[in-house]
Amino acid sequence: MSYKILTIDILKAYILEIDTIHSYLEDGEIKVEEIGDGNLNFVYIVTNIDTQKSLIVKQAVPYLRIAGEGFPLSRERMSYEIRALQFYGELVPNLVPKIYHADEEMSLIIMENLSEHIIMRKGLIETVKYPKFAEDISTFLAQTLFYSSSLYLESSKKRQLIDRFNSNVELCKLTEDFVFTLAFMDDETNEINPQLKEEAKALFDENEFKKNLLQLKYIFMTQSDALLHGDLHTGSIMLNQKETYVIDPEFAFVGAFGFDIGALIANMINAYISHFYRSEDAEYQAWVLESIREIWNGFERKFLALWSEHPNSALLKEGFIAPKELDEFKATFMTNIFQQTVGFAGAKIARRVFGIAGVEDIRGIEDKEKRKEAELMALSIGKDLILNYKHINTVDELIENIRMTDVRKI
Amino acid sequence: MSYKILTIDILKAYILEIDTIHSYLEDGEIKVEEIGDGNLNFVYIVTNIDTQKSLIVKQAVPYLRIAGEGFPLSRERMSYEIRALQFYGELVPNLVPKIYHADEEMSLIIMENLSEHIIMRKGLIETVKYPKFAEDISTFLAQTLFYSSSLYLESSKKRQLIDRFNSNVELCKLTEDFVFTLAFMDDETNEINPQLKEEAKALFDENEFKKNLLQLKYIFMTQSDALLHGDLHTGSIMLNQKETYVIDPEFAFVGAFGFDIGALIANMINAYISHFYRSEDAEYQAWVLESIREIWNGFERKFLALWSEHPNSALLKEGFIAPKELDEFKATFMTNIFQQTVGFAGAKIARRVFGIAGVEDIRGIEDKEKRKEAELMALSIGKDLILNYKHINTVDELIENIRMTDVRKI
Repeated sequence: MSYKILTIDILKAYILEIDTIHSYLEDGEIKVEEIGDGNLNFVYIVTNIDTQKSLIVKQAVPYLRIAGEGFPLSRERMSYEIRALQFYGELVPNLVPKIYHADEEMSLIIMENLSEHIIMRKGLIETVKYPKFAEDISTFLAQTLFYSSSLYLESSKKRQLIDRFNSNVELCKLTEDFVFTLAFMDDETNEINPQLKEEAKALFDENEFKKNLLQLKYIFMTQSDALLHGDLHTGSIMLNQKETYVIDPEFAFVGAFGFDIGALIANMINAYISHFYRSEDAEYQAWVLESIREIWNGFERKFLALWSEHPNSALLKEGFIAPKELDEFKATFMTNIFQQTVGFAGAKIARRVFGIAGVEDIRGIEDKEKRKEAELMALSIGKDLILNYKHINTVDELIENIRMTDVRKI
Repeated sequence: MSYKILTIDILKAYILEIDTIHSYLEDGEIKVEEIGDGNLNFVYIVTNIDTQKSLIVKQAVPYLRIAGEGFPLSRERMSYEIRALQFYGELVPNLVPKIYHADEEMSLIIMENLSEHIIMRKGLIETVKYPKFAEDISTFLAQTLFYSSSLYLESSKKRQLIDRFNSNVELCKLTEDFVFTLAFMDDETNEINPQLKEEAKALFDENEFKKNLLQLKYIFMTQSDALLHGDLHTGSIMLNQKETYVIDPEFAFVGAFGFDIGALIANMINAYISHFYRSEDAEYQAWVLESIREIWNGFERKFLALWSEHPNSALLKEGFIAPKELDEFKATFMTNIFQQTVGFAGAKIARRVFGIAGVEDIRGIEDKEKRKEAELMALSIGKDLILNYKHINTVDELIENIRMTDVRKI
């Protein structure tokens, strides 16, 4: 059917007419509740009170939900979320919510309710350790990036994949603007801590690191390595001690290998920084840094293992190059991904300081003096990573760089 | 109408029913002749014998014309040629043939007959100098690459452009296979001079330069800088002393900045090499090398001038970065394009030696001993450029590198 907004009064009837949904929920008293925390979309929990079975219903509207109809945003973003979740569902079914129904025409998806998992950012703020996280997310990254790349796909399949995501223009543009541009110059969208007005002005006048920022933005816009989630921060992950789920891939497009990993590492670094001022729990901070090391090392190991299993692809033809030189090529290739990861992480950290949409880890620090110090530390680390991304070649160097940031010097 | 092959007996009636064609050719006796030199497509000259007005009719068939129906090749390639010629026609109308009629459904294009121009490769073999060439082709490169890039377009327009060319899968794959892969390994498609069997075997066993070749292939496959012609060798240029035309952009796609320039420079270098054994005309060889210098310098100057005229784009927002650092960023950006140009040129030269489809400049040398020496020289230069592309930063260094290749050492 053609698109219409499923207001809460018609939603129940609408979804119960879908056979798979009806048979999943079973007969009984059905309750529909809106969840308030969707920024872009309307999100509902639908529960059968009798059987306690529940589902999540998510529908995109042709504007930014949180801002209202005055902020139009194409509802086609849901098509990319659906396509990405379907792609992930084939590859890593245990790491994404199960889809029960998807309808691009209606910009609608109905999926598993992850009722026993929380948004990772909240867990990190509360100093919860997740023993399975690094293992799970590095699997997610290795599998999704490798299998959507020219290191696995044939050329024609790669171009088909690009076709399916190429028109996700508006959400890519949000990243271009808000991650790489506006947070580093005078702009009305910025949200600058009044205590840091001087520092913001000083940052906007610094130009050396902006050359690298432009390089990174250019890579983001023009490098078609693999299917990205596109917004893989700790708010796009739900987990508990045993399971990890990646959600909300509406920013998905075929982009640079390092972008998802960089986004994730950036958010881990923000968590690390925040605990100088929140918990002051050095042991928890050490766990966060160790997780970064395990994420990269796990990703690299698994990615290379997949690459070894698949000697033929758009790029490679078996017999073209000897094993020793192939390994050297791969090592250079991985170093290049790592450097870009560092650069993207730097941009992601730094843009959260003065730009729109800061992270709760840091902006949520109640003590104003502490919040200010945390923001300055984030700025310092972010800028350092942007400036030096082509010279930080290993995750050990990255972690050493972060550790060396002495709070008191700032 | 739906697709049908315009055999010579029905072609005249078909095209005269098209109003623009009829009115261009005017009334009179119309003659249709097939031109034999189209490898991929059927090409005809249609002439009004009374008025001497003429046109070129080109139609793609769903196979490789030169090889027959046993070698299927999607006729949609003509759609990309049409789209690229239309894009070029808007930008540089004096550097591409005028289109009188284009029909993607029929895989058909009818265009200006360049009867006073010859294929550049033939002119180079005959040591003809073209005083306007470097100026014209550097304008073509600067205009077409700049205006189709993220340095000019907005993000949404860039993605629309990618959409229009992304599915040119088969022709991109031909380049991936024949330029970057099969000519450097044992493969049945190769055409190896029987006198160079040992040398071919030795090349196929060399692995160091293949790491760089893989890097270049990966850039070719995944870097979406700008709309490329995709096959800009000297057989895709028609010219005379006063005018230059670029033809046959059926390989067009959104790819890496350096690829077209590299292809062109590669073919100029092949011409330079050939004249050690053809004309032995050192002064002509110096003109060829000087043309390479003028092509790059002209391209760079014009490209940077266009960039200065357009301070806002997908990449740049006016005020983001200070002028000095912006200039430094641009300088690094141009050096990067030049390095990739050198690498692509190396691959293009080297692949012509043992791979399918050698160039007439060299393979057409009749004296077997001389041909062998020319092939070895091309191999040496091509491999050198592939190995060192990241260390050759200026066109002067490139030309010095080529000049230093002493024939007698080979």
